[in-house]
Amino acid sequence: MIDLKRLVRAHFKENSLSKVSTKINSGNFFEDFTIGQKIKHPLPRTITDGDVSFYIALTGSRFALHSGQCLAKEFGYNRRPLDDLLMFHLTFGKSVQDISLNAIANLGYAEVKFPYPVYVGDTVRLETKIIGLKENSNGKSGVVYVHSIGYNQFNEEILNLKRWVMVHKRNKGEMSGINDVPTFAKTTPISEELNIPKADKISTSSTGGDYFWEDYEEGERLNHIEGITIDDSDHTLATKLYQNNAKVHFNDHMMQNSPVGERLMYGGHVISIARSISFNGLQNAQWIYSINSGAHANPTLAGDTIYAYTEVIEKIDHNRADLGLLRLRTIALKNMTPTEVEDARGEDGKYLPNVVLDLDYTVVIPKKPKNKLNKK
Amino acid sequence: MIDLKRLVRAHFKENSLSKVSTKINSGNFFEDFTIGQKIKHPLPRTITDGDVSFYIALTGSRFALHSGQCLAKEFGYNRRPLDDLLMFHLTFGKSVQDISLNAIANLGYAEVKFPYPVYVGDTVRLETKIIGLKENSNGKSGVVYVHSIGYNQFNEEILNLKRWVMVHKRNKGEMSGINDVPTFAKTTPISEELNIPKADKISTSSTGGDYFWEDYEEGERLNHIEGITIDDSDHTLATKLYQNNAKVHFNDHMMQNSPVGERLMYGGHVISIARSISFNGLQNAQWIYSINSGAHANPTLAGDTIYAYTEVIEKIDHNRADLGLLRLRTIALKNMTPTEVEDARGEDGKYLPNVVLDLDYTVVIPKKPKNKLNKK
Amino acid sequence: MIDLKRLVRAHFKENSLSKVSTKINSGNFFEDFTIGQKIKHPLPRTITDGDVSFYIALTGSRFALHSGQCLAKEFGYNRRPLDDLLMFHLTFGKSVQDISLNAIANLGYAEVKFPYPVYVGDTVRLETKIIGLKENSNGKSGVVYVHSIGYNQFNEEILNLKRWVMVHKRNKGEMSGINDVPTFAKTTPISEELNIPKADKISTSSTGGDYFWEDYEEGERLNHIEGITIDDSDHTLATKLYQNNAKVHFNDHMMQNSPVGERLMYGGHVISIARSISFNGLQNAQWIYSINSGAHANPTLAGDTIYAYTEVIEKIDHNRADLGLLRLRTIALKNMTPTEVEDARGEDGKYLPNVVLDLDYTVVIPKKPKNKLNKK
Repeated sequence: MIDLKRLVRAHFKENSLSKVSTKINSGNFFEDFTIGQKIKHPLPRTITDGDVSFYIALTGSRFALHSGQCLAKEFGYNRRPLDDLLMFHLTFGKSVQDISLNAIANLGYAEVKFPYPVYVGDTVRLETKIIGLKENSNGKSGVVYVHSIGYNQFNEEILNLKRWVMVHKRNKGEMSGINDVPTFAKTTPISEELNIPKADKISTSSTGGDYFWEDYEEGERLNHIEGITIDDSDHTLATKLYQNNAKVHFNDHMMQNSPVGERLMYGGHVISIARSISFNGLQNAQWIYSINSGAHANPTLAGDTIYAYTEVIEKIDHNRADLGLLRLRTIALKNMTPTEVEDARGEDGKYLPNVVLDLDYTVVIPKKPKNKLNKK
Repeated sequence: MIDLKRLVRAHFKENSLSKVSTKINSGNFFEDFTIGQKIKHPLPRTITDGDVSFYIALTGSRFALHSGQCLAKEFGYNRRPLDDLLMFHLTFGKSVQDISLNAIANLGYAEVKFPYPVYVGDTVRLETKIIGLKENSNGKSGVVYVHSIGYNQFNEEILNLKRWVMVHKRNKGEMSGINDVPTFAKTTPISEELNIPKADKISTSSTGGDYFWEDYEEGERLNHIEGITIDDSDHTLATKLYQNNAKVHFNDHMMQNSPVGERLMYGGHVISIARSISFNGLQNAQWIYSINSGAHANPTLAGDTIYAYTEVIEKIDHNRADLGLLRLRTIALKNMTPTEVEDARGEDGKYLPNVVLDLDYTVVIPKKPKNKLNKK
Repeated sequence: MIDLKRLVRAHFKENSLSKVSTKINSGNFFEDFTIGQKIKHPLPRTITDGDVSFYIALTGSRFALHSGQCLAKEFGYNRRPLDDLLMFHLTFGKSVQDISLNAIANLGYAEVKFPYPVYVGDTVRLETKIIGLKENSNGKSGVVYVHSIGYNQFNEEILNLKRWVMVHKRNKGEMSGINDVPTFAKTTPISEELNIPKADKISTSSTGGDYFWEDYEEGERLNHIEGITIDDSDHTLATKLYQNNAKVHFNDHMMQNSPVGERLMYGGHVISIARSISFNGLQNAQWIYSINSGAHANPTLAGDTIYAYTEVIEKIDHNRADLGLLRLRTIALKNMTPTEVEDARGEDGKYLPNVVLDLDYTVVIPKKPKNKLNKK
């Protein structure tokens, strides 16, 4: 999407002038990465109540655990834990300037875990190891595979993810032939221990949802009824809040010369909107355990209305008597309602043009309480 | 405004597929309500400094009591109390999914009271009782009358309101003939006690206003000079912040098929903008005691510029030596200045097309200090 | 830009009606100011984490000192200090209703200092003295020169600035001949003491920048590579957050009749965007010591993409062994990249039409640490 010729020309022009500074970080190109390389991303970020309010305003999210302090205490927390996706965006955003500033596309995610709760006041940071490189045959770009781990201020692991990104080559046409692609687990393995307090006093009149783990069945499809239209300021405010500085999201002047002709929405914002829409039907599924895989099937632009439906892929029991897991697939659509779509892919196996997200993830949801006194 | 045919068709289509979930809450229709029915709305909401900043950004509100901690202490508070309307929106928003998700229009408010101050850190929740039902003669819809009470985490009553909403019927044409309409007080009665600290040290150089209760006269009209243009992201961010999920405010794709052709602005946002504009002339009227009645006379759309004027309807004395009340009527206009409007209603008794809000409310304002040392 | 005729006509119309209130503050006109006059601006403002998050969302700012609590502690602070420009906007915004409500244009700034750090929880206020008046020969307007000082709740001086503004005359054509223009220092003098903790443990892997005071040279030019597009909601949310109520920024209905035809962006927002863009190349320059002078060379409108380049004008040593200063000139451009601009002014000495800001300011930046162990 980036006009690389122009960037390179600018680069050379810069170097031909005597005093033009070389202190500008123009991001890493494909050739700048090596397998095994480790990167400490700068800008540890303290998360505040301001971020939490902003996230609710951006997404309309209603999961009760993140909305109310009293409810969080009923759930056994001292304080409201952060919405997993808000934490994801604030932590993940740090990697953009080193990994994906010159990205053509975020191709996928795998084995994304949220191992430890994050709270207001915590400071998160991110470190990344390069785990794979694959040159594209066109000689212009390549795919970089990374493994990133996020930490809080106590060095507790709060995020663990793998992703792959297509980035521009600095020197087009010079082939290295590198083709070292890692393998990923199809789903993130489920741990013996869940860092979630005992969930035996769920007030469904507070969470807004009557359904528990036992109530869902594999193959069930939830056609969420809400649609949320996203405007320019929404998605750019979100992306700036996360200090994600990938140019394609911000710079309309540059993007006017790209095939899409305008700013692309940060894919993470689409994930958050889809998750927010999925509330209706999954009210008690308040924890994301993992993102098993994710694909941004088509670009989302300002003005698009996002809809979503969710399929229950798998019911996963756990040794915890109070909690179970559901592996879900949420499909986000633009300008098309869930009832208009039978399958996200057409007969040719390709995503329909209105499909913008295919997210395979696992959530934690309480089991049905033993006594029925929970409904106050 | 909602394409009910399409909703119903989708509903039937869902039920004809084997695995389509019935866990989606598609909101209540007219037939789902009964008089005397009680509803505990889910999602208690903790209010933070993030919400306060966001509200200022959305409205430009400048009432000093809510802007500065030091001033709030001068007013006798330990902490800045929340702007009454911000609290209203955050509490009221909870009722949408149960009451007005399928609303055609919010028809009116009555007897709205703000009995107890709310602070940052408080958690608010809402309960509602159905107090009236009236079927419309067209057989397609009906009016639901509700009485809602908001509480903080100590079960203190912080909001008390009645409102009526036109909602779709699930089964068009099936008439029940119900016509049970409650009566409302024309104005909210004034209590003997006001939950406001002694206001005897008002620094007018801090509040920005020189006028006190004695200075206003009945019949006086304040033509506020500011106009505020509202854009798409403004009003949708506001409505999402309040976790108000009424579809008409968010879903542009759906609304393109409605008569208005685009998203409708949440009427509460218009009230907040009008209140913010009314600051200039009413700087010391920092507490809303009640909303006696309110009508959203015409829809407001993104791009509209809101103006407002205020008429002093009644001066109400109080046994408090330091405080009095003013019953006000604020008219909000779109794309028309107050000096262009003599009366909100035309000769036919109907609201002018540019009138978007007719709000009858009562504010508390300090009386003139006995000594004049207050102006530092 | 304001249709004064209309304002005046409205004013007379108001006064001809019996009950139209005169309590509206319609702002000061040129004739309302006298040299030596002192103004206490109302609305002391408490700054919260909500403001900090909002500022990051509005600007994408990434200066590490303001992003992370842990890093601020490494820098010797107990808490994250506020971004100097956020504090500037929140404090400065107070002066608008008294000084520039009827402004035609903000003409310039001089001797702007940030003498003391401000933290979340502080309450800021502003006082102003009129230091100069110059009537324009057209008889319609004049220039008002002011000296404003901002204080925190402990009456510590946290902002000190001079600025001049062109405002409308109330009575066009009546000439007073006043022409009393103050002189300004070309640059803000540098103090012997800097209110900054000892900066000897800078972790460049946290700040994201490898360059220190010694690394920069006079004449060096940094062509920042990022561009940020600003939309309507962005700049109006910013300006409302700062409680800056200058009509030109908010009222699109009024501005449609102005030469520019739409809302003008608050110039301070452009300064913040330019500063945010300048991060790439100046990552360690986390303190603004002063703004020596600033000019809004051309208006910025919604939809414009802002780019910026920075010239190092002067390296200023300081008796502090750990800190030095750089006097910088940041030029912000709209819809034009830095590499396309050799000089902000054309051969005729006038600013190019795409130049929107010419900011001469001084930043503090750590000196190179004595041992090289700082890079973790």
